[in-house]
Amino acid sequence: MKLVIIRHGESEWNKLNLFTGWSDVDLSVKGIEEAKSAGKFLEKNGLDFDICYTSYLKRAIHTLNLVLEGMDREWLPVIKSYKLNERHYGALQGLNKAETSEKYGEDQVKIWRRSFSVKPPILDETSSQNPKIQEQYRGIDKNELPLCESLEDTIKRVVPYFNDVIKKDMLSGRRVLIVAHGNSIRSLVKYFENLSEDEILEVNIPTGIPLVYEFDDNFNILDKHYLGDEEEITKKIMSVVNQGSIESKEIEKV
Amino acid sequence: MKLVIIRHGESEWNKLNLFTGWSDVDLSVKGIEEAKSAGKFLEKNGLDFDICYTSYLKRAIHTLNLVLEGMDREWLPVIKSYKLNERHYGALQGLNKAETSEKYGEDQVKIWRRSFSVKPPILDETSSQNPKIQEQYRGIDKNELPLCESLEDTIKRVVPYFNDVIKKDMLSGRRVLIVAHGNSIRSLVKYFENLSEDEILEVNIPTGIPLVYEFDDNFNILDKHYLGDEEEITKKIMSVVNQGSIESKEIEKV
Repeated sequence: MKLVIIRHGESEWNKLNLFTGWSDVDLSVKGIEEAKSAGKFLEKNGLDFDICYTSYLKRAIHTLNLVLEGMDREWLPVIKSYKLNERHYGALQGLNKAETSEKYGEDQVKIWRRSFSVKPPILDETSSQNPKIQEQYRGIDKNELPLCESLEDTIKRVVPYFNDVIKKDMLSGRRVLIVAHGNSIRSLVKYFENLSEDEILEVNIPTGIPLVYEFDDNFNILDKHYLGDEEEITKKIMSVVNQGSIESKEIEKV
Repeated sequence: MKLVIIRHGESEWNKLNLFTGWSDVDLSVKGIEEAKSAGKFLEKNGLDFDICYTSYLKRAIHTLNLVLEGMDREWLPVIKSYKLNERHYGALQGLNKAETSEKYGEDQVKIWRRSFSVKPPILDETSSQNPKIQEQYRGIDKNELPLCESLEDTIKRVVPYFNDVIKKDMLSGRRVLIVAHGNSIRSLVKYFENLSEDEILEVNIPTGIPLVYEFDDNFNILDKHYLGDEEEITKKIMSVVNQGSIESKEIEKV
């Protein structure tokens, strides 16, 4: 069984160095290009799908639309679920890293960004960003909707969705494509590869590069690889890593 | 109960005066603009939906994507079904009207275009356009897939799908948006309004203009109107009508 996972292309807020989380920002021009090439690359490599999953957030939905366009597969069924959303970054959403450090202190920010189970500060119930009052989540049980999440919380949302819904498709022989976010994909990677809490924090998912898993019937991994030019992939992963350190340096300056 | 129906924006082949049918051509630049304004218009008029239906053809899927983008509703569930496809134009697909007239004679072409129950010439089984061998329809029972359709055939495909699937959503209180094609929409209009075979042939659906039906619980029509600038709508409907007569004149010249 093969499973292909793609992290959405660069978003508008990546460039601005803002915490995004469930903020519904669109792809940047670069992100659009990343999505298009991912689709063409999949098609060129003879990969095909029977069903696609994505989140409720437009940077992932648009990425999937562009991937399907590149593959000439617009007609494939697409299931959207908020369960595949990015980690909810609570009251940090919309702040840039410098502001965050000013407001909460540098050490605290490091803990929020680098720890597995510590939640970011909770979003105010009255915030227009509260998913319990946002139109986007009107169909979802309010008790399920978070006001902030640790990576651990995100895993508890994503992995059961994989097991309850996506796994069934795979076991019935359907070829699945998932387009999601840095931390919802990390959640799956940790689960598939049985990584420790420390190990998963070292995993960086490049944007717009198809990640291909091959499993046996018991979901043991037979093969795992990124699909694309190896040099470009390494560059992309390093850019995610370096982004982190640049941000840290910026915070240290404040 | 409200139901909103939109015909996809202008396609690349509209401009070239070709029979399209199930040929999977994309929107023209004008068609993209039409789809975007439809979405913005719906949003401005406070219309909202719980579920969307469209065909397997990219000119409809892209129109729906752009409508949802204009409404900031990308996260709504979308169901794609070939049952909402355009009428299958058989061996005429990809021909322009002049060529068609040369090949089959002017009178015959008029009959194919203007009659309710006469089918166009059947597509050759070996054609790459045969849906029975196209990837796009690989999930569909081959016996269901046509090699040509009269308007009557299209109705027999579209109306049961409405009754079996879409109606259930509406009766359970869900607000439905359908993005489809000239003849799949005509099929619904004939059914809703109980039009005769002659009457439905006089109905012209403008591209990219939301058509709003309001029904009572027994699907009697309480209200029907197009959503948009009245002058523009009249102009659009007339352009569809005139398009017909220009085409006829062109055919007469051949």
